[in-house]
Amino acid sequence: MPARQIQVAVVGSASADHALLSVAEDVGKKIALAGALLVCGGLTGVMEAAAKGARSGGGTVLGVLPGYAHCQANQWVDIVVPTGLGHARNAVVVASGEAVIALAGGAGTLSEVYLALKLGRPVVVLGNWVRPQGALHAQTPGEAVSKALSALTPSRR
Amino acid sequence: MPARQIQVAVVGSASADHALLSVAEDVGKKIALAGALLVCGGLTGVMEAAAKGARSGGGTVLGVLPGYAHCQANQWVDIVVPTGLGHARNAVVVASGEAVIALAGGAGTLSEVYLALKLGRPVVVLGNWVRPQGALHAQTPGEAVSKALSALTPSRR
Amino acid sequence: MPARQIQVAVVGSASADHALLSVAEDVGKKIALAGALLVCGGLTGVMEAAAKGARSGGGTVLGVLPGYAHCQANQWVDIVVPTGLGHARNAVVVASGEAVIALAGGAGTLSEVYLALKLGRPVVVLGNWVRPQGALHAQTPGEAVSKALSALTPSRR
Amino acid sequence: MPARQIQVAVVGSASADHALLSVAEDVGKKIALAGALLVCGGLTGVMEAAAKGARSGGGTVLGVLPGYAHCQANQWVDIVVPTGLGHARNAVVVASGEAVIALAGGAGTLSEVYLALKLGRPVVVLGNWVRPQGALHAQTPGEAVSKALSALTPSRR
Repeated sequence: MPARQIQVAVVGSASADHALLSVAEDVGKKIALAGALLVCGGLTGVMEAAAKGARSGGGTVLGVLPGYAHCQANQWVDIVVPTGLGHARNAVVVASGEAVIALAGGAGTLSEVYLALKLGRPVVVLGNWVRPQGALHAQTPGEAVSKALSALTPSRR
Repeated sequence: MPARQIQVAVVGSASADHALLSVAEDVGKKIALAGALLVCGGLTGVMEAAAKGARSGGGTVLGVLPGYAHCQANQWVDIVVPTGLGHARNAVVVASGEAVIALAGGAGTLSEVYLALKLGRPVVVLGNWVRPQGALHAQTPGEAVSKALSALTPSRR
Repeated sequence: MPARQIQVAVVGSASADHALLSVAEDVGKKIALAGALLVCGGLTGVMEAAAKGARSGGGTVLGVLPGYAHCQANQWVDIVVPTGLGHARNAVVVASGEAVIALAGGAGTLSEVYLALKLGRPVVVLGNWVRPQGALHAQTPGEAVSKALSALTPSRR
Repeated sequence: MPARQIQVAVVGSASADHALLSVAEDVGKKIALAGALLVCGGLTGVMEAAAKGARSGGGTVLGVLPGYAHCQANQWVDIVVPTGLGHARNAVVVASGEAVIALAGGAGTLSEVYLALKLGRPVVVLGNWVRPQGALHAQTPGEAVSKALSALTPSRR
């Protein structure tokens, strides 16, 4: 039986500009090309662009929703977890990643960054939008994915 | 783009006897053979047997865990959601199914049956171990899977 | 410093008839008169009647809500916990009680009964509407409150 | 019937130095003296010092725990909500405050600050340890409590 796929969560703004969406799509694609599964919040913006990218790279997308309806997931999500937990679903998003890549975002994204750090998940911040203690940093999608995978526990690399 | 797979949750005892495990394995296999994805609690007993069956039928298994460690999932789980929510994860298990099949179990399983009914998810009880108002009933794995899929909203059948 | 008050959760239907509401109010009042704090779901029906009863007995009421708005609590709630967790809040309601008294209800109430039993909280079912394995039973409000308090761990009686 | 008490959440490090504990105690006391109820995470450090302060001011303390055991609450907590939700309990802590005061802390505290901002709760950061967009700032316990109360919706001031 082949080993279970590595799971990488991508977090970021639900309403991003074109440049950030393009970066998110590239991150998602590189996660897929590395053979990993994308975890995201399943909605719009960075979540949707990363999901689209992962699918374009032949990958699989897990979407963890705040509500109860599967149909609220964006069209690129393969597997839906409708938690019904509201904002507490942010904790489930980051817990589901074995590593977390954070693109620019607002308070919701930052809550995910800090919950991930609190949980001990490796966190890679892409770009210079925030410098949380304990996080890794990357300037390109390729560097972010590479650092996320390198930060996994040895048995999962 | 092909439509997203139907997701069917299977709930039941974490410590089942051989006969119940065999039924669970058959339910999992028939879910996979019908082209649906299996959602389960990711641990032992009915959860593990259903997962094993789904894999033997070529299917995919989503495991929604109470703790934070991916490695707590049984070996048949493909995709892990380590919620860290304790018993509140039961609500996420059943919310993740578009329909729920309930095999015999104790208080934890019954909490899932009633949470699923409260959420409005179709619930099929397999066997005569309980008769909750609003649930469907089946006597065989094949009948259970068939009734679960028939109970989906028309757009998902 | 006086010992912390005993906390007793009361669960039951959100839309009850007059007879059941009267029973709920009496249960709430007897909890207060016993010097315990009432925990409930903070909304209507049994939750509201029990809260009203507790206040009439000079007691304090904790309401654990499914949404985020404090103002959704009924008028008898003193202290509000707006969880935002949807149906997963049922797990928080029963976890907050050191014992749980269950009046007649539907699927939501039954999910609370079984979550409480799974958690190991003593559960007293008032009336003959259901007979869950492991629960205690009572026929009157006074008997229910008495059995709930007697079932606490020795250090809390 | 008197109006329900205002609820103010205080968040901060679970392992604070003497100076920070002294500030936390003063914040808790001033919340109580203003007639408000203190919400906290119920454990050690800032949570415990704020709770002690609130009690010394004659106030009431609500402790929202990550685990299931009431006895894990510190000795100053009057009312315990043992959520069993792990780190997702942070969302319940801040949702339970009608305003949130944040003392210095690490990733867990910062996750609470950003969850509170995402929820739309007024957040007052005490000291210069972080400058989140949308938060209010204060330099003394008195200023923090005053700003928190002034930031409430008009009907609750």
